[in-house]
Amino acid sequence: MNGTINIEKELLSFIPKDDKLITTVLESMKYSLTAGGKRVRPMLALEFAELCKGSPEAAVPFACAVEMIHTYSLIHDDLPCMDDDDLRRGKPTNHKVFGEAAAVLGGDALLTLAFETILSERAVKLNGFEKCVKAGRLLAQCAGAEGMIGGQIIDIESENKSVSADHLKIMDSKKTGELIRAACLLGCISAGADEDQMKAAEKYASCIGLAFQIVDDMLDVLSDEATLGKPIGSDKDNNKSTYVSLLGIDECRRIANELTDQAIESLSAFDGDTSALKEFAEKLRDRKN
Amino acid sequence: MNGTINIEKELLSFIPKDDKLITTVLESMKYSLTAGGKRVRPMLALEFAELCKGSPEAAVPFACAVEMIHTYSLIHDDLPCMDDDDLRRGKPTNHKVFGEAAAVLGGDALLTLAFETILSERAVKLNGFEKCVKAGRLLAQCAGAEGMIGGQIIDIESENKSVSADHLKIMDSKKTGELIRAACLLGCISAGADEDQMKAAEKYASCIGLAFQIVDDMLDVLSDEATLGKPIGSDKDNNKSTYVSLLGIDECRRIANELTDQAIESLSAFDGDTSALKEFAEKLRDRKN
Repeated sequence: MNGTINIEKELLSFIPKDDKLITTVLESMKYSLTAGGKRVRPMLALEFAELCKGSPEAAVPFACAVEMIHTYSLIHDDLPCMDDDDLRRGKPTNHKVFGEAAAVLGGDALLTLAFETILSERAVKLNGFEKCVKAGRLLAQCAGAEGMIGGQIIDIESENKSVSADHLKIMDSKKTGELIRAACLLGCISAGADEDQMKAAEKYASCIGLAFQIVDDMLDVLSDEATLGKPIGSDKDNNKSTYVSLLGIDECRRIANELTDQAIESLSAFDGDTSALKEFAEKLRDRKN
Repeated sequence: MNGTINIEKELLSFIPKDDKLITTVLESMKYSLTAGGKRVRPMLALEFAELCKGSPEAAVPFACAVEMIHTYSLIHDDLPCMDDDDLRRGKPTNHKVFGEAAAVLGGDALLTLAFETILSERAVKLNGFEKCVKAGRLLAQCAGAEGMIGGQIIDIESENKSVSADHLKIMDSKKTGELIRAACLLGCISAGADEDQMKAAEKYASCIGLAFQIVDDMLDVLSDEATLGKPIGSDKDNNKSTYVSLLGIDECRRIANELTDQAIESLSAFDGDTSALKEFAEKLRDRKN
């Protein structure tokens, strides 16, 4: 599991050196970048790089770029005009600490830094120009209006509406799925993977991405039931459609199992050690929070 | 002056095809991208590409990318938590039309699209992988925390403070200068310009960038004087330091002239037709609004 790479340290290494005139924006960036993320996306990028016989070290700038995109999206998502959240992973959200203006700018700066990182001299030295272009282009597509940002607008416009399970799937495949896909594929690109490997990585990504969301919904309902004594299927927010409210908890469990099996099955396209990715898929399915 | 290139049309050609689920974010992007910008940055990119014996057509994706960055920065700048502006170029600002959430996301999507554009298949076909990487890296540096975004945070933190002319220069060189520099250099990169040409383009960019800001301050004061009968040097906002309040109007005029002369002088490094860039520098100096 790429034990020699310290992704926390690597992420910070791409932040510009301190300059007192711009301290606020640098601190805003660092605060959220080091706020206890689970580093799922960098892990996926490094694992797929290794699995496709590339070097995890070469994939580090790509892995860091995906995490920067993920982090900026959380900062902007938490803003008062978006989800208006005061806490994120148990800590005050970026705008609560630095104010809204510095949160907007810190997010913008992390988004910009993701592309500076993926196109950096270090990234080129390790991967060459062509792979850096392909990685940057893919990341932009996955993070942009047709990808993650598109998912966010669908989410906003679906609030307080009852929508279908297919609508939820499209929303989630964009809002979270596209960046998971980017993470897996960026590892493949760094390693010079072939078409079949890229397709298998995409399959793995889409399966674990959707399984994650479904399990999330199940955990919400089960925790409500445990703490509030509510019957399964009655959502805490009745206006919000979830996989559980639309499909029922048993069907959700069945689909989550099936997706996890498919994710693991897709790994058979690789002849390297897939145990870490297999365990990860199972852990997502079996988690309790 | 690259009469055959229709930059308005080119800009729109990079926006994803309409998809009804994400219409709001696409409309938000298009609204600001077509809201009557003067296209200074694309013009500079195309002119420098031609001047360095490159093809303006090849520089089009780079030119569009800079304009997308400029446009996103205006959307985010106008937000209630930033400058809180209701109008931009005589039209309602993005968040007034689409709401704050779609304005944040539309800006994010344009910022992301800039990199998708600069790394697009079209850009690579016309410029090759290496130039696309160098252009994208430079754009990210100029637009990021050490560039434009840094300038914005300095601007926010300088509000209602009296600061020195040197402080203003640093702020402006980042807030507006860096993106002008990017525009000029992106044209050079597309054309495969040499070191000397790149340095001359940077000199031109920094001179017109600062001259523009100084003339802006002068016009503010002169229009106050004309419409309100205020004496020259008394700012409408007494708490805000400007070049005029710090240096006086005569010194400002002298510096603006000197910078314009230096910008024009820098063009002597090129043996092509520099008339358009010379006229542009003079027009910036002589404008009345």
